[in-house]
Amino acid sequence: MIPAEILRKKRDGGTLSEEELTAFISGLVTGSITPPQAAAFLMAACIRGLDRTETVALTTAMARSGHRYNWEHLGYAVDKHSTGGVGDKISLLVAPIAAAAGAIVPMMSGRGLGHTGGTVDKLESIVGFRVVLTDEEIERQLRTLGVVMLAQSERLAPADRILYALRDETGTVESIGLITASILSKKIAEGARGLALDVKVGRGAFLQRSSDARELALSLQEVAQGAGLDVHIALTDMDDPLGYAVGNWVEVVEAERALADPRQCPPDIEELTLHLAGAMLELSGIAASLAEGIEHARRVWASGQAWERFHAMIAAQGGDWKSSLERYRTAVALTVEGSQEGYVTGFQTRQIGLVAVQLGVGRLRSSDTVDPAAGIVFHVRRGDRVEPGMPLATLAAQDERRLSACAEQLRATIEIESAPPPPRRSVVVETF
Amino acid sequence: MIPAEILRKKRDGGTLSEEELTAFISGLVTGSITPPQAAAFLMAACIRGLDRTETVALTTAMARSGHRYNWEHLGYAVDKHSTGGVGDKISLLVAPIAAAAGAIVPMMSGRGLGHTGGTVDKLESIVGFRVVLTDEEIERQLRTLGVVMLAQSERLAPADRILYALRDETGTVESIGLITASILSKKIAEGARGLALDVKVGRGAFLQRSSDARELALSLQEVAQGAGLDVHIALTDMDDPLGYAVGNWVEVVEAERALADPRQCPPDIEELTLHLAGAMLELSGIAASLAEGIEHARRVWASGQAWERFHAMIAAQGGDWKSSLERYRTAVALTVEGSQEGYVTGFQTRQIGLVAVQLGVGRLRSSDTVDPAAGIVFHVRRGDRVEPGMPLATLAAQDERRLSACAEQLRATIEIESAPPPPRRSVVVETF
Repeated sequence: MIPAEILRKKRDGGTLSEEELTAFISGLVTGSITPPQAAAFLMAACIRGLDRTETVALTTAMARSGHRYNWEHLGYAVDKHSTGGVGDKISLLVAPIAAAAGAIVPMMSGRGLGHTGGTVDKLESIVGFRVVLTDEEIERQLRTLGVVMLAQSERLAPADRILYALRDETGTVESIGLITASILSKKIAEGARGLALDVKVGRGAFLQRSSDARELALSLQEVAQGAGLDVHIALTDMDDPLGYAVGNWVEVVEAERALADPRQCPPDIEELTLHLAGAMLELSGIAASLAEGIEHARRVWASGQAWERFHAMIAAQGGDWKSSLERYRTAVALTVEGSQEGYVTGFQTRQIGLVAVQLGVGRLRSSDTVDPAAGIVFHVRRGDRVEPGMPLATLAAQDERRLSACAEQLRATIEIESAPPPPRRSVVVETF
Repeated sequence: MIPAEILRKKRDGGTLSEEELTAFISGLVTGSITPPQAAAFLMAACIRGLDRTETVALTTAMARSGHRYNWEHLGYAVDKHSTGGVGDKISLLVAPIAAAAGAIVPMMSGRGLGHTGGTVDKLESIVGFRVVLTDEEIERQLRTLGVVMLAQSERLAPADRILYALRDETGTVESIGLITASILSKKIAEGARGLALDVKVGRGAFLQRSSDARELALSLQEVAQGAGLDVHIALTDMDDPLGYAVGNWVEVVEAERALADPRQCPPDIEELTLHLAGAMLELSGIAASLAEGIEHARRVWASGQAWERFHAMIAAQGGDWKSSLERYRTAVALTVEGSQEGYVTGFQTRQIGLVAVQLGVGRLRSSDTVDPAAGIVFHVRRGDRVEPGMPLATLAAQDERRLSACAEQLRATIEIESAPPPPRRSVVVETF
């Protein structure tokens, strides 16, 4: 393989062979492909595109670039992934529900990115919770509880880590092929056989246009099929924050309360959780259809077993629920009140994510530290009638100075008009 | 300036502003632009192209990225550049001719690249010749002799050096905009006000198609104008090697003999030398037109003054002509003889350049060393009648083992057919 020849081929709009892509990715990890060569590849792939066959080859090569877990001896491993949203705590619910229904869920998640939250940041707000376990601990916990929630291991898909950092650096993030390969390669390396994929679309998603989200969903579906990963893909609405809480600890609490009593669960969280957990059960062969999977998930949730599994998992991974509840009592809070009469007609959801990051929920730079106590809890949803003086949202943070600056920005994200909005449509827009 | 935003803009086919390109090039030298970012820029520029305004801004920014010479106090500095050929020793002739005619010629050249030779490698075959001088030495020599022939200073256009190495590494060499900026930025930094540009086209050139060479010529013309550099551009034929000699010392000898006696000069060398030297005199204002410049150059050449200036320059730069003649007497040689009857109808000129590199004339890797004695001297030209046993070419090298392997390859590059070829057309195809 002559690296410059491969780059010239893609530069001129050619189609790279499986051998060329495999050699390129392998060279990236061994160092025979330099970072400038990788960057040139990313730019050429962004502009010229990668077809399905190329994306399958890239995905497979990236999945094989490092350590690969294999859970075949335990059964069919199934995971869930979301392309990123605001207030998206769905992983915290579906993992214990699916496990309580009999699935094997070795879930590895990421941290917050841009304006969106990350499951690992949420889990780490639980005092003592360990998102890194030894291989023996992971295996033992999957045997006993059927679920483990971890940070992506450093050993998995190292080629993806190299390319991911370079994409950010070189303005080559927005590529359907590269996004597809990045998402799927990690899940394949993690040992998942099946994957419920939540592709978000709307004002709070990375992809705001339906056509873009649908293009990504189709790419994910076809490439997963080519790479031997079973998928259920749901295109879901991310116009409004999911549920009422946006943050780390505040979202963990909202998820825990919802698991404890589904009757108190916000309807958007309930719909999306049942859909994705149902899909995981169908993928696992535990349910014969999606509808059966959803019914099975609903029963397990209502029975309290999912809530028990959630707490058993926290205890098994070193988390201390009681200490967490105590710890976050001391966070300072500020409530934003309404100044006009009308109806909540919508939210500037991406902006809400950015306010949350500023508050300490996420990182502006990768070196920033996260404030687990930071977060926003809304008191109103789309369609609610509001009056002057009525509490709209409460902001919490350990750092008091951040609160007031963020409070005014947050107020501007809540859209209030005199006429009520049309009724909210269902969260799941389309499935693939 | 946010580097990734600039890269995204070019990725999506946008036009970069002068400020964006200036900031990018400046960041490249200070280190705030990383090599992967530079590589992504090169790939995007290759695929999306750079328009004339962008190329002018890039050229100017690159020219300003390091030290800049200024010879205004000495007069109008004029240089000559060729895009690279086989047997191209024209710089060795035009520089002393133009200087003897009164021009100021601070010539900085490159080394051999690919299958083409480099003026600096040729000069270094002269025993003792120094291609690096102090600024004081350069100035003194320009005052006394009007000509100095040097290697490109490391201090000039460092941004070009960074991008040039990355282009080779990342398969982004073939870009009209990047080639234009690379050539012109170095000449502007060198302090040239005017430039005679020899854009080669044909079997022995980098660009083999007329349309590509014409596109580059037009780009060089328009960008030079935008960047404030006067140019005369000649599109010239590189189907056959120039003259009879291909190598380093053998070319220096051919140039010296031609300067000593223009009546013995091969007609292609004579035509091209007079054209380019004439253009340099017109650019300098020494001649009122190209035709006058050519006549002036012809007179200076015939008078012996150019030959004297050539030797004065060699002596001034530490070269020892007599020792050089002695030294290369010891090189071993091998003559290739004809095996059939017919006419020489053409040469595989690119292949001749590659055989020469193998013989030791150039470098396969930048770490290779050059054999100054290595070279090929042809005994026949296109149109000559040949018979079995007639000497076609003689190969010389310090390393005897290389000779026989190269001899057979060389034989295959000389095309012999039964019918004579059409008469050779003039070397200068078109001017801009």
